[in-house]
Amino acid sequence: MTDTPIAEARAVLPMGELAPHAEGPELIEATEAGRQLALRWRNGDRARFPLTWLRDHCACAECRHPMTRERLYMALEVPEQAPATGLEDGNLILTWADGHVSHFDAVWLHQRRPGQAREDAVPARRPWAPDYRPTRVDHADFVAGAEGERAWLTALLRDGLVLLENGPLADEEVSRLAGRIGPLRATNFGARFDVQSKPNPNNAAYTTIGLALHTDLPNWRHPPDIQLLYCLENDAEGGESTFFDGFAAAEALRRQDPEAFRRLSETEIDFRFQDEAHDLVWSAPLLSLDEQGRVVEVRLNNWIRDTLRLPLEEIDAWYDAYRAFWALAQDPENRLEFSLAPGEMVAFDNRRVMHGRNAFDPSTGRRHLQGTYLDLDMCESRLRVLARRN
Amino acid sequence: MTDTPIAEARAVLPMGELAPHAEGPELIEATEAGRQLALRWRNGDRARFPLTWLRDHCACAECRHPMTRERLYMALEVPEQAPATGLEDGNLILTWADGHVSHFDAVWLHQRRPGQAREDAVPARRPWAPDYRPTRVDHADFVAGAEGERAWLTALLRDGLVLLENGPLADEEVSRLAGRIGPLRATNFGARFDVQSKPNPNNAAYTTIGLALHTDLPNWRHPPDIQLLYCLENDAEGGESTFFDGFAAAEALRRQDPEAFRRLSETEIDFRFQDEAHDLVWSAPLLSLDEQGRVVEVRLNNWIRDTLRLPLEEIDAWYDAYRAFWALAQDPENRLEFSLAPGEMVAFDNRRVMHGRNAFDPSTGRRHLQGTYLDLDMCESRLRVLARRN
Repeated sequence: MTDTPIAEARAVLPMGELAPHAEGPELIEATEAGRQLALRWRNGDRARFPLTWLRDHCACAECRHPMTRERLYMALEVPEQAPATGLEDGNLILTWADGHVSHFDAVWLHQRRPGQAREDAVPARRPWAPDYRPTRVDHADFVAGAEGERAWLTALLRDGLVLLENGPLADEEVSRLAGRIGPLRATNFGARFDVQSKPNPNNAAYTTIGLALHTDLPNWRHPPDIQLLYCLENDAEGGESTFFDGFAAAEALRRQDPEAFRRLSETEIDFRFQDEAHDLVWSAPLLSLDEQGRVVEVRLNNWIRDTLRLPLEEIDAWYDAYRAFWALAQDPENRLEFSLAPGEMVAFDNRRVMHGRNAFDPSTGRRHLQGTYLDLDMCESRLRVLARRN
Repeated sequence: MTDTPIAEARAVLPMGELAPHAEGPELIEATEAGRQLALRWRNGDRARFPLTWLRDHCACAECRHPMTRERLYMALEVPEQAPATGLEDGNLILTWADGHVSHFDAVWLHQRRPGQAREDAVPARRPWAPDYRPTRVDHADFVAGAEGERAWLTALLRDGLVLLENGPLADEEVSRLAGRIGPLRATNFGARFDVQSKPNPNNAAYTTIGLALHTDLPNWRHPPDIQLLYCLENDAEGGESTFFDGFAAAEALRRQDPEAFRRLSETEIDFRFQDEAHDLVWSAPLLSLDEQGRVVEVRLNNWIRDTLRLPLEEIDAWYDAYRAFWALAQDPENRLEFSLAPGEMVAFDNRRVMHGRNAFDPSTGRRHLQGTYLDLDMCESRLRVLARRN
């Protein structure tokens, strides 16, 4: 006679989560250990949980709202006494001194062992290699269902850029595609913008001049995350789109000129856009680093660099560092350049990837892109929801 | 015979700015000093400007787009030779070695002396004193013109909270008012939301329960800045609105329990909202500090605190610090509590001021607020534009 398979013995308990926690080891031991509980799972893993933590994470209908899944318990008191401990169907039951009962799913606890990192469907960012070529997703696959959308989101979040192809030449298609992911992020240029030459431009994009590499709206506290540019017409000579991975450029600068890297990451400069209706100013360094010193944002836009307000002795050194970064961002080996065809859409992480375009000659044909912005939070959220279906 | 008044002698030169630079001292001396230019104004002020800086800030039609006011010059080269220097009508003219000519308005330069801070119409933030009472602006004044709107924006940006009163009981009035300032900031709850009890709530706000103090959407990278809540009906018993200045609470914690303050400002925790369509996660400390150690953001929302994923030895201490902050945020002396009357709107800085409400009894009457979010950037921009009219 063989043992009963472990997976069948365990009941999966509701923990107020939509992410899965069915697959994993059952609990086989729970021992009181002072103000902690020591747990052991069938696979040999062990962990200790503070009683305060356990009380705070109770998922009963009183502690966590059954419809909103939000925590109702306030964690204002430290549990004075250890609860009575039991195992049932491979899961944990605690009966607290005041009679409150908490049920914990064994796998949910296993996923949340103190010090254990959170699993996430969002891929890690990957810098562009010299032979990097953007992932292409067919418009039909994107709109057909989860798989095309997942492929598109994964490439976008991993590489900071992705192409969609074979789309219809339909006005506002860019808004419809973006709207599948989340609400459009509106700015002083509106929720959706048309990139074509205009008679009274308030922005260089609306002229025919070449646009040096830049990121959009660094004069905002939080510049738009994801930019989508959908091509409706592109017959004019010139107007090729250019892209450069800003994180890769920053890392190259860190290697080749650490002093310039330090200066650009530590010196806040002003960015400013002004027109009749707006005066948007923000100060930030060109390169923003996180606590671990990793580059997390590039802000580069020569048009709306405002007056460089620095102490006199820092000015020349800042320009030197700025030029060093520029020089690296021209490296043809790491620079993408291509013509968007009508029905193609490029989407890119505006806080990571710099973009630009070559000048075009409007007498040779028309060039018309429609663009909008999306929040990265909504892209990541959408990918997590699609991953639930696995 | 008296001297000609200085102000009349000086011509005001266009510098591509919409902010004023007419009033101020003329230039009386410009001297070459190596790779810098030394300037002296009529009022005795002196400053040095690097040649690179001057070339970069040229405002001629070739260097700065005459319609977009954006910089076209790229600052890729260091000027090899000093320019020929002249003063004309109290302003500066430079003729560069390649023949390019730059005209600089004397007062524009005076405002931008290296090391000089930028002037801004946006007021400094002021913590709530114990006797703080919100500024009230009449709806009619807000919509009549610049003065009411300026008063409203100034109080909002300074105090983090402002009241509007005597407004119409009109559906969507909150969107119309917000739309005067900028585009609505849309989130997973839409661009505009109705705070009333709903049959299938996905958020505690849509129930009748009391809401402990919180900030909205700390599970976003950049939570909404400004929240507007417009009251259309408020007859139910209970439901009073509560507010607490999170920056003041944080400073109180820093004084009374520096270790708890340090822990809450250094420990990133997860926030998460999940429903059928969303799974929005972000990690951040409860208190975010800037480079100078000033509190710049509070993220507090007990409902959507996700699993506390910390190393075992940090967990109990984090809960202790959390409780210490909670205790300070209950201080009745620094807590605002009032009933919003129909036709009143409260606006507050969601990343600074915590808000909540008492429970209400839906059998005693109806309670209906309409809300939306605005970007702080757009509020500041609007105030700068209104200040131009001075």
